[in-house]
Amino acid sequence: MSTTTQETRNGVNVAQLVETIGAIQNDPSLATFRFRATNTWLGGGHSRTSINGFWGAGQEDASRQTPFTLEGDEPPVLLGQNNGPNAVEAVLHALASCLAVGFVYNAAAQGIEVRELEFDLEGELDLHGFLGLSEQTRPGYGHITLTYRVDADATSEQIDELCQYVQRTSPVLDIIKNPVTVTVARR
Amino acid sequence: MSTTTQETRNGVNVAQLVETIGAIQNDPSLATFRFRATNTWLGGGHSRTSINGFWGAGQEDASRQTPFTLEGDEPPVLLGQNNGPNAVEAVLHALASCLAVGFVYNAAAQGIEVRELEFDLEGELDLHGFLGLSEQTRPGYGHITLTYRVDADATSEQIDELCQYVQRTSPVLDIIKNPVTVTVARR
Repeated sequence: MSTTTQETRNGVNVAQLVETIGAIQNDPSLATFRFRATNTWLGGGHSRTSINGFWGAGQEDASRQTPFTLEGDEPPVLLGQNNGPNAVEAVLHALASCLAVGFVYNAAAQGIEVRELEFDLEGELDLHGFLGLSEQTRPGYGHITLTYRVDADATSEQIDELCQYVQRTSPVLDIIKNPVTVTVARR
Repeated sequence: MSTTTQETRNGVNVAQLVETIGAIQNDPSLATFRFRATNTWLGGGHSRTSINGFWGAGQEDASRQTPFTLEGDEPPVLLGQNNGPNAVEAVLHALASCLAVGFVYNAAAQGIEVRELEFDLEGELDLHGFLGLSEQTRPGYGHITLTYRVDADATSEQIDELCQYVQRTSPVLDIIKNPVTVTVARR
């Protein structure tokens, strides 16, 4: 397989991917990324998150002209007004979009053409935890079920192996499956 | 404190909140919620999540007329085209919007008026994990730092106590801080 700077597979610039890996192998400090977000409460269950700059690859990123905004709210049954998906639904989005990137980038690196990729997710949650009605019930998802459908130029075994690799290296799957330390402080 | 069906505090219908808690105490099965999402890959790092119905309070929710859509992509330095925030940035949004709901709902229940509430979040991540360059480096955030600013009709001690309670009962904080089982299967 030959790669040139023009080559893209699955919409991924494979040469840039190889260069990125090489650059980090030469200078491990380039691998440090710090992502940021600011959230402002707007009333009731409604809040808005603004996402723009981040630190990564040794510098502050300046690629985004305007911030992304994400709305969060609850549905009426949870006392909100449906101004956006709720927080645990946003977790499902984060997980799916992470696995999509991992799947497609690693497929590109392995020379596998992906034509279609789709994820269905479901998370089950018991409201006793959030409402403080039971200390035995965790507030978050007890379990997340994900199914995916892929149309790719690969054997079933290659797809399974790729999927295993993607699961081992997915940032959001790791965040969900394993403990992350969170520090909360008031300004 | 008297509550009527008309009473709202912080934009939260306090009477409905009390009713919801009472209904779940009477019938614990009402506390089971199943949230869903579907994600479709669109090319490169870009995918789109659609979020609409869910199961909760004993029935399929029908309050949303049109699905919410959330875009996910990577910035150019991570081989994407900035069609949306990336997956780990979406995790920060999910965490903040969850804490906002928890803070404001519980403040309303306690009779505390919240005027302003804002969260700043930062998550640090080492790309060695995602790129498969080190099995010692976790793919996800090593650490998330959150600071908040609140203007509310409460003492500093009341705010701290409320914040502790919110942290104990936040679904997304629980999902991030503690392990969640995720099942992945191909269709």
